Formats: sequence, C-alpha cells, structure tokens
Amino acid sequence: MKKVKIYVTLRESVLDPQGSAVMGSLHKMGYGQVEDVRIGKYLELMIADGEKDIDALVNEMCHRLLTNTVIEDYRFEIEEAVSQ
Amino acid sequence: MKKVKIYVTLRESVLDPQGSAVMGSLHKMGYGQVEDVRIGKYLELMIADGEKDIDALVNEMCHRLLTNTVIEDYRFEIEEAVSQ
Repeated sequence: MKKVKIYVTLRESVLDPQGSAVMGSLHKMGYGQVEDVRIGKYLELMIADGEKDIDALVNEMCHRLLTNTVIEDYRFEIEEAVSQ
Repeated sequence: MKKVKIYVTLRESVLDPQGSAVMGSLHKMGYGQVEDVRIGKYLELMIADGEKDIDALVNEMCHRLLTNTVIEDYRFEIEEAVSQ
C-alpha cells in the first residue's frame, strides 16, 4: 500500500479571501507579526500496491478531479504505508 | 521572515465525509485502486522576524483559531523565507 500526500495551493497570482479573513482574525487577536496567510488543501490517498506508474496515476487524478489547475498548484509525496 | 507550513488533518477516529465523497467519485472514474481518501487543510503563514519562540506562537494560534483540536490534529514546519 502506498500513501500519497498531496498539497494543493492557490497560485501566487490568485487572491485568497479565506486566507485574508484568517489573517484579519489573527491580527484582531493580537498576532500582528503574521504578515500573510494562504490556505490550501491537504489530501492523503491510500493506493493499493501493483500500480506500475504511480506518479502518472496521481497526476492524472489531480488533473481530472482533485485540483483545479487553472487556479491551483499541487505537489505530492509518495510513501510506503503498512496496511492496517 | 519565517514561512510556517501547517498541515491539519482529521483525527483517525473522525469520519471524513468529504474524503468519502471524493473516493466515491474516483471509483466511478475508474480509479478503483484508491482505497482511502482523507482531506485536510494546508496553511502557509508568513511571520515577521523577531519572534523569540515561534513554536509556541504557532501552537497558540493553532489552538486558539486555526484548528479544532477536538477533531483535528496538526503538525507544522518552519522555514526561513526571503521577503519579497
């Protein structure tokens, strides 16, 4: 079993209203040293063994469903996982 | 400037309906090898230099605002960032 960790972030050029709202709240709570907040998604996929090209599989799933590549970037890591 | 990357995940014991929905979609699209999907949040904070104990600061912000520690776990990494 493989564990794939996918990090999805908004592209630099895209406004992040959710991040701005969180930063505003942090400032009101006294954390003025926080200069920027960006919020993205973190996905963990468990994939059965036997896949030949897991990189290509993950890229395909990211493009078809998991991310919006117009406004988002993604990167991923693949780890060996012990099945439970 | 420090860049803090925070990964927030649902605790193991907590159901993840969003992850289940994504897994269902992946299966319908033919990706039957995906055995589990869990979805969390990924936050990037930029913090001004001069903070004495940045670990304690980030933990405090996570507990007070950024995460719900009843149902979520988090971990974070701190990197040196070049200000733009």
